[in-house]
Amino acid sequence: MTKKYALGLDFGTNSCRALIVDLENGNETAGFVFPYPSGDNGILLDAKDPNIARQNPRDYLTGIEVSLKGALQQAKSKYADFKAQNIIGIGVDTTGSSPMPVDKKGTPLGLLPQYKDNPDAMVWLWKDHSSYAEAAHITELAKKIRPEYLAKIGGTYSSEWFWSKILHCRNTAPDVFKAASSFVEICDYIPAVLSGDTRPDKIIRSICAAGHKAMYNDSWGGLPDKEFLATLSPEFGELRERLYSKAVPSDRLAGRLSPEWAEKLGLAPGIAIAVGAFDAHMGAVGAGVKEGTLVKILGTSTCDVMVSPRKKGFTDIPGVCGIVDGSVLPDHYGIEAGQSAVGDIFLWFVNHLVPDKYGTSLEEKFKNLETAASSQKPGEHGLLALDWNNGNRTILADVRLSGLLIGQTLHTKAHEIYRALIESTAFGALTIINRLEEYGVPVREIVNCGGLAAKNPFLMQIYADVTGRPMKISRLDQTCALGAAIFGAAAAGKEKSGFESVEKAQEAMTGVKKTYTPDLESHKVYKQLYLLYQQLHDAFGTEKWEGKMYNVMKELITLREEQNK
Amino acid sequence: MTKKYALGLDFGTNSCRALIVDLENGNETAGFVFPYPSGDNGILLDAKDPNIARQNPRDYLTGIEVSLKGALQQAKSKYADFKAQNIIGIGVDTTGSSPMPVDKKGTPLGLLPQYKDNPDAMVWLWKDHSSYAEAAHITELAKKIRPEYLAKIGGTYSSEWFWSKILHCRNTAPDVFKAASSFVEICDYIPAVLSGDTRPDKIIRSICAAGHKAMYNDSWGGLPDKEFLATLSPEFGELRERLYSKAVPSDRLAGRLSPEWAEKLGLAPGIAIAVGAFDAHMGAVGAGVKEGTLVKILGTSTCDVMVSPRKKGFTDIPGVCGIVDGSVLPDHYGIEAGQSAVGDIFLWFVNHLVPDKYGTSLEEKFKNLETAASSQKPGEHGLLALDWNNGNRTILADVRLSGLLIGQTLHTKAHEIYRALIESTAFGALTIINRLEEYGVPVREIVNCGGLAAKNPFLMQIYADVTGRPMKISRLDQTCALGAAIFGAAAAGKEKSGFESVEKAQEAMTGVKKTYTPDLESHKVYKQLYLLYQQLHDAFGTEKWEGKMYNVMKELITLREEQNK
Repeated sequence: MTKKYALGLDFGTNSCRALIVDLENGNETAGFVFPYPSGDNGILLDAKDPNIARQNPRDYLTGIEVSLKGALQQAKSKYADFKAQNIIGIGVDTTGSSPMPVDKKGTPLGLLPQYKDNPDAMVWLWKDHSSYAEAAHITELAKKIRPEYLAKIGGTYSSEWFWSKILHCRNTAPDVFKAASSFVEICDYIPAVLSGDTRPDKIIRSICAAGHKAMYNDSWGGLPDKEFLATLSPEFGELRERLYSKAVPSDRLAGRLSPEWAEKLGLAPGIAIAVGAFDAHMGAVGAGVKEGTLVKILGTSTCDVMVSPRKKGFTDIPGVCGIVDGSVLPDHYGIEAGQSAVGDIFLWFVNHLVPDKYGTSLEEKFKNLETAASSQKPGEHGLLALDWNNGNRTILADVRLSGLLIGQTLHTKAHEIYRALIESTAFGALTIINRLEEYGVPVREIVNCGGLAAKNPFLMQIYADVTGRPMKISRLDQTCALGAAIFGAAAAGKEKSGFESVEKAQEAMTGVKKTYTPDLESHKVYKQLYLLYQQLHDAFGTEKWEGKMYNVMKELITLREEQNK
Repeated sequence: MTKKYALGLDFGTNSCRALIVDLENGNETAGFVFPYPSGDNGILLDAKDPNIARQNPRDYLTGIEVSLKGALQQAKSKYADFKAQNIIGIGVDTTGSSPMPVDKKGTPLGLLPQYKDNPDAMVWLWKDHSSYAEAAHITELAKKIRPEYLAKIGGTYSSEWFWSKILHCRNTAPDVFKAASSFVEICDYIPAVLSGDTRPDKIIRSICAAGHKAMYNDSWGGLPDKEFLATLSPEFGELRERLYSKAVPSDRLAGRLSPEWAEKLGLAPGIAIAVGAFDAHMGAVGAGVKEGTLVKILGTSTCDVMVSPRKKGFTDIPGVCGIVDGSVLPDHYGIEAGQSAVGDIFLWFVNHLVPDKYGTSLEEKFKNLETAASSQKPGEHGLLALDWNNGNRTILADVRLSGLLIGQTLHTKAHEIYRALIESTAFGALTIINRLEEYGVPVREIVNCGGLAAKNPFLMQIYADVTGRPMKISRLDQTCALGAAIFGAAAAGKEKSGFESVEKAQEAMTGVKKTYTPDLESHKVYKQLYLLYQQLHDAFGTEKWEGKMYNVMKELITLREEQNK
């Protein structure tokens, strides 16, 4: 039998990856990573405003070609019998909400000479928080006149999302806004590029991006209505018409590979290009998400994804930012939660606050921090942190929060703070699990994927110990790209792929390679620490909290002493 | 006219210093520093317990000889007409409360072969906090049966003080306690060594050490009474008799230089050795303390010293740890407050959390942190810290507190945290000033001395900006040693020194060399930040506080944004 393959294209925060997957078992045939050349690790920053994070669309275009060619070449050199013509479909996942302004032809404004140095004409990366005021304004307005919009997104519209960013663009860069014929999420743009038609009105839009970030819902006729948008800004009423009226799941076709791209890459022209989606959602599919299974994609930030069958109906969950029909698996509600920064917090710490006695390279520093931290018992360092350096996505949905560290003595070491930061993200993760279960979504299994899950056993063990639950690791490291490839196969249809459904493809192609079991002694201590975390969490993060703080330092010191005995 | 000199011997936390001072103008004729060779910068630590801080008495004995000889030699080589015989007296200041167990002859147990590796037989350094439970116990008992004891020491007995340390020794090292014939503060021990008689019952004890740290007060017959002590521990009743019944100010004689030491050093035998006192108190005298003048000695920790004339009477000040008649200047109440860690916090930060891109040596790192931090406006970093890494001495008198840092983003840099830590100590300093004034001790002038005052203009400017008050810098850097020399001269008597009183000697020998004037724009911003500092201070540091915390992160972020504009 001829081997068949699908291609996953995964556009992350700092790089993009092409992955060729064997449809028989989900194994990686070949993969290639292209780090974005622009800015700071691919991100265009502003020294005066830590909220700003943009990307150059040119990096994506280069990335498509370089990563696809790289993967194809690797496959050929690894397997003599590999034939690029046996690739039956391509799926694409990206970060999001990462919209960009485009002109009538669909050319990103950032690629035009007159905007090439204008960050406002670039891609507004998911973690750009400059539009926090607009987010608050949108939330306020929706509370007043369209509360149903908020119910699906956890009650608060985020500065990380589509409308906030576009409204901020309109408010602070009116020239760019005026020049934009439409705004396109990069998860919709890349498939359109591959299909050879980027005209905004021709681009097939993803239900995942639309539903989770743009308040799209079929029940109210798609995007927010004209009246609502016009109240936000008079120009928004018209803009609505230049956006889209329909969004669809990723087992559907975005288009077919254009002859130009087919020739450039040596692929069969006309193969399926699946509708794009966000990395976390496709990653969840690649990690085997199903009812009862929480998939955590642990990277610079995390996305926590679950699904709930459409037939069971659904209750809104406060603070859980997205519940969208079909955004993850067809016929299921996709539920998205997440932490605004996880790996980013560790990277920040190691880049800015770890002396060279731990090593000279980032890698050495991480390794030595881990070695030193892993010899400690929970609570021994006496520290407690809040994981809010980049705000809190779930369950507070508030970007105007910050990091906090408590318990430092004159002897606190960098590796102790590193451990406390890891623990803080674990407490954040537990807070999300608790909220899901409180609202009737039982978590029976947790499958982890993403860079941190694959590379950081120390972190995964702490997550198991803090939550008191086994932490499973997805078999393939590159679950986002695998999920994209699964959708590439699904979009190609049963005849080509052999799979009746996305779920059947998952059964064949996904799995677990390792499980971290909680240590019960450690879990007992972490239960105490979690109470203090919750106290700080509620005190600093919620308006309604009122109480005492005097116990916090005392309890941390007492625990430190007990654990040092 | 023959030049006359006095010698000041200053025993700090990490080194001791001998200073030869010209009585005509207070100028430094010569000085020599001896870093203690034992442990970590002279401190014996315990990796398992950050509370423990001991010192080896051998370091002091070596220090007396090396530093005195070094200073004398330097004076001779600098001034052809210098004659060691024209030194008329020696004064001694040390850290404290730093008691040690001694045998019947007054030999420190730590010098005996059988105890040479036993940290409990060594000097219990002022910043040893291992006896926090004993301190709480003493406070509890005094509250019940001797509230008058607490009124003089701010309401709480500290783990840094004499009885807590001895009780902890009794509880955890009973063999050492049993072997101890008496316990001697090193400020009493060094003058006794120089006088040639260290027998415990012959040692003249300092009112400064006794009154501030051992609850000594003439009004209740000296040390705490036998009943009180015996309630703490049955052995303490007897121990009281092996301690002392009288303590005196430092313008009095502790003894006269022994022939052995005179010969060894080339000094005149029989010159005056003044009664010892703590560094901060003598430092305040060397900085020109008088009614209305707050002297801040800024070093690893700070001591804040004021005086109030005895004839004005005195009200106790809650949280201000010591009010003792004659402890600073004769006929004045000495008022001591302080911060448990200042320079120590910066040193901790630079040692443990500053990457080598700021420099490879400590000195380089400090310099580059300062350069980078000084380009920022107040509030621009968005951070706020509590300066409690070593607990809080004034006004909370609580060692069971810890550091806290709030406001970190993913872009926070080490130099921004460095600035926030400096600011936190300035807020701590302001809290002390406010408390003194609230209770009727007006602060009309602030004179700063100690290492940080001399070497850190960046810090001093922040102190001026935070407090809104001019920060004056004492003319001589070595005010503690100068103060000791002034007492050496005073103890020698008017006939030898030419001074009628300590105050007259201060007029001739002390002064101010520089003043930092507050920047009013910065002060305005710091006033806002101080409100948040007070909120965190009261919330985490006081049992009675109850309220909300939600505003803290929000206000810091808003201020950061305003200051970044």
